[in-house]
Amino acid sequence: MALDRLIEKIIETKNPTVMGLDPKLDLIPEGIKKEAFEIHGKTPEGAANALLRFNKALIDAVCDIIPAVKPQAAYYEMYGWQGVRALADTILYAKSRGMYVIVDGKRNDIGTTMEAYANSWLGETALDGTAFTPFGGDALTVNGYLGTDGIAPLLKVCQKYDKGIFVLVKTSNPSSGELQDERLGNGKTVYEAMAELCAKWGKELPGKHGYTGVGAVVGATYPEQLAELRRKFPNLFFLVPGYGAQGGGGKSVAPAFDKDGLGAVVNASRSLMCAWQNITDMSLTEATRCEALRMREDIGQGFRG
Amino acid sequence: MALDRLIEKIIETKNPTVMGLDPKLDLIPEGIKKEAFEIHGKTPEGAANALLRFNKALIDAVCDIIPAVKPQAAYYEMYGWQGVRALADTILYAKSRGMYVIVDGKRNDIGTTMEAYANSWLGETALDGTAFTPFGGDALTVNGYLGTDGIAPLLKVCQKYDKGIFVLVKTSNPSSGELQDERLGNGKTVYEAMAELCAKWGKELPGKHGYTGVGAVVGATYPEQLAELRRKFPNLFFLVPGYGAQGGGGKSVAPAFDKDGLGAVVNASRSLMCAWQNITDMSLTEATRCEALRMREDIGQGFRG
Repeated sequence: MALDRLIEKIIETKNPTVMGLDPKLDLIPEGIKKEAFEIHGKTPEGAANALLRFNKALIDAVCDIIPAVKPQAAYYEMYGWQGVRALADTILYAKSRGMYVIVDGKRNDIGTTMEAYANSWLGETALDGTAFTPFGGDALTVNGYLGTDGIAPLLKVCQKYDKGIFVLVKTSNPSSGELQDERLGNGKTVYEAMAELCAKWGKELPGKHGYTGVGAVVGATYPEQLAELRRKFPNLFFLVPGYGAQGGGGKSVAPAFDKDGLGAVVNASRSLMCAWQNITDMSLTEATRCEALRMREDIGQGFRG
Repeated sequence: MALDRLIEKIIETKNPTVMGLDPKLDLIPEGIKKEAFEIHGKTPEGAANALLRFNKALIDAVCDIIPAVKPQAAYYEMYGWQGVRALADTILYAKSRGMYVIVDGKRNDIGTTMEAYANSWLGETALDGTAFTPFGGDALTVNGYLGTDGIAPLLKVCQKYDKGIFVLVKTSNPSSGELQDERLGNGKTVYEAMAELCAKWGKELPGKHGYTGVGAVVGATYPEQLAELRRKFPNLFFLVPGYGAQGGGGKSVAPAFDKDGLGAVVNASRSLMCAWQNITDMSLTEATRCEALRMREDIGQGFRG
């Protein structure tokens, strides 16, 4: 239940890392693009095929040492429905290689519309007497600004299909405080109020490692808030963006973890996806693995003390 | 610029209405489904084709009397990438019939990721020296919880391609107050703080009718807040959901309008899409037109009196 499958993959790989898959065309090696364009031409189909080939190469490189991937929906939607098809195929491939898939869509709506999003990304869609799986992710990022009406439909789908969600609480960007750090009349911040809602919602999805199926997104760029939220909300599992390119390092993310080294998964997108550009004397596979192992070491040093 | 094209279509049709296109399979007439399934089988492709046929029929029925459509992304994503293709084709068709297209995706993210969403839904994507239009909407709904970093990239794309956005401020659902009605230390509500941010962001997208390109989503189910926000934020154009099925009527939405009857567009999804089910002695075309004219009259009475 809940996020247990993710937590067990983290324990198995001894690595609380998730690889972001944000494959813009200009980050993809020329060789991969050439193969895709030769088959499909310089079309949206060709671009989508290049995305998928790149993702498969990255997944093959690290699927035994990184437990999860996080494709960001925007980078697929920008290549039209063809890109969205590449996203569907990427999810399928990552799962076939044993990885846990967090779809980063930050979806949000209410009632039957939110139920439609939940079934799109985590569940099944009825089709005149039969059912099919549109995307089949394991977890979805969501925005809780609309309140319980926006989350309750997800919880039901998570229960039914053994899936989880991550709600935006304190995001990694410089201006996140404009709304999230505002203090309410009771002295609490908006992000703390959101974390309290997450804790409440999570009671519907208890997990066997002490963490519920309603996780929280908290940026690596705010280590003090990470520490505060870790202390106040012992049952909230964190998805931590902002490591690497956005400035967070092993020490910044250390407060996200509990005394057993669990409680969080740290995302890196650019630093892993572009390792092949930065380590020029290695193949894409070697460079990605090398950076993955460096990151595991860096985070490990952080959370052990 | 801004939302001017929408406002001008509203003046032309004398109708501040937007038709929501949330086409779940079980809302579609059997005849349309049968045609689609005969060609494509009971597959995601068949379902997507039924969605598109239904949308085209609805658009044909009202494109001279309703200025805009609002497809809700969730109802297409639930049919996989095939559904997303039907969304792309729906947008293209609505535009070919002269309608303004508000994509209801409630997208949100930061930096280059938000730029990717903006280009996906409103702009263009670079493709190795050329560019293509992934979806081509006229406006996009977004969630502003992440602050300025999540909106600034959109503003640039809106400037470049003459598009607009609608930011969630006070949503129509019963639990919207859990976060949105909380009072900040300065006595203002969270939704008012969000409206203030919208007013600030809107300065980058001035419009010639007094309304900026950064609109606000405010539910018909909260007429007092509609009136308060109309008074405090004279430059915010409102997208008003919650009319019809959710309980709002002509009188509920009246406070959204300014003294000239402008300043807002009211969404109806279910009541228009399912008019053919409720008015059984008419064709789909006649029933949809009939309900569209009834709604125009209902809203008109509200905002004139």
